[in-house]
Amino acid sequence: MLLKGAKLKISEIPEPTIMRLTVYARCLTDLVKQNVQVVSSEKLANEAGVNAAQVRKDLSYLGSFGRRGVGYETNHLLNKISICLGLTKERSIVIVGVGKLGSALLGYQGFLEKGFKMVAAFDTDKRRIGSSIGGIEVIDLERVDEIIKKKNVEIGIIAVPAEAAQKVADRLVVAGIKSILNFAPVVIKVPESILLRRVDLSSELEILSHYLNSSHKE
Amino acid sequence: MLLKGAKLKISEIPEPTIMRLTVYARCLTDLVKQNVQVVSSEKLANEAGVNAAQVRKDLSYLGSFGRRGVGYETNHLLNKISICLGLTKERSIVIVGVGKLGSALLGYQGFLEKGFKMVAAFDTDKRRIGSSIGGIEVIDLERVDEIIKKKNVEIGIIAVPAEAAQKVADRLVVAGIKSILNFAPVVIKVPESILLRRVDLSSELEILSHYLNSSHKE
Repeated sequence: MLLKGAKLKISEIPEPTIMRLTVYARCLTDLVKQNVQVVSSEKLANEAGVNAAQVRKDLSYLGSFGRRGVGYETNHLLNKISICLGLTKERSIVIVGVGKLGSALLGYQGFLEKGFKMVAAFDTDKRRIGSSIGGIEVIDLERVDEIIKKKNVEIGIIAVPAEAAQKVADRLVVAGIKSILNFAPVVIKVPESILLRRVDLSSELEILSHYLNSSHKE
Repeated sequence: MLLKGAKLKISEIPEPTIMRLTVYARCLTDLVKQNVQVVSSEKLANEAGVNAAQVRKDLSYLGSFGRRGVGYETNHLLNKISICLGLTKERSIVIVGVGKLGSALLGYQGFLEKGFKMVAAFDTDKRRIGSSIGGIEVIDLERVDEIIKKKNVEIGIIAVPAEAAQKVADRLVVAGIKSILNFAPVVIKVPESILLRRVDLSSELEILSHYLNSSHKE
């Protein structure tokens, strides 16, 4: 949620559409695996849990290539979305903080499938440094600049406690990171040139809570 | 992302505003802790990483109570937002799946602070059942109906592998859950009456990837 960064202006596609494109990509991947070659906007909408008009509108940002009365070629559409999402190129990621959440993220297989490559994990805890989690070595945070530059890392995931998050973000920025995904439950600040997204687990529950509350008022 | 469910229509506040309200609440909690009693929309905007006009627009959904040239009383505003987010009432949560991610979520302190109460964790793995994670007992999934009804659980978190997620969602729905937060990397389907939100870790990276890609084209 709440993507920030000056570079955004370059994209002409609204953020909610980008979000839905990631969902369509997931559905299309399943369909391709099942050897389904053509899909209608109705069927894709049903799979993605949105309505068909929304699907057509979202896909119109990628150019016109659905065939009226026939639908979209699954492989072709998946390819188009992958290009739009920049998934045709491998992107290197690092993670800072290998507590419970960080370790869980390190073990998450889904990243690899999508062309994201976890190149290193950092921590400041001497007991963790030198250990290996999910095949990734845990390195002293002191070496973050060196690794980010050497391995051309584009995305940094922050999974440290709230009170350490801003300091870690500052270090990542100095090291030359281009984008940050923040899991720490705190609002961090970065220069305008850095893309920043946060995943706030409490926020997700609070949003559900709001709607549960609204529905009780019925 | 991608909130679904018929009940949404009841809320007149747009979803992006709801998301930002959770951020303002986090900033205001910090300000209250620091004994700051009044905050301007500019200052709150800066803390939350949005612009001041956005803050004023978002807060206008809660009614008019900022004082021109003075600002908002932090405590009062936090209280208003908490009411809007339905956080004035304790809500019971269960989690299904206590692998790495599920265990990390169980240990997440932030939930408790916001009035969410983790009442049980479920798994099907006999080696996990009966153990305790973060003070929460891991219970056989077979007992999910009984616990959800007895403890009046409103929110179910799904943290099982993709292939098991739909089945778990179906069970939660039958058991009478009102809302689901899905962490499994798959699109699940639920009846219209159930609120559904998903946190897709790959999607978050894909969204960053899209913008990294766009900025490279500059």
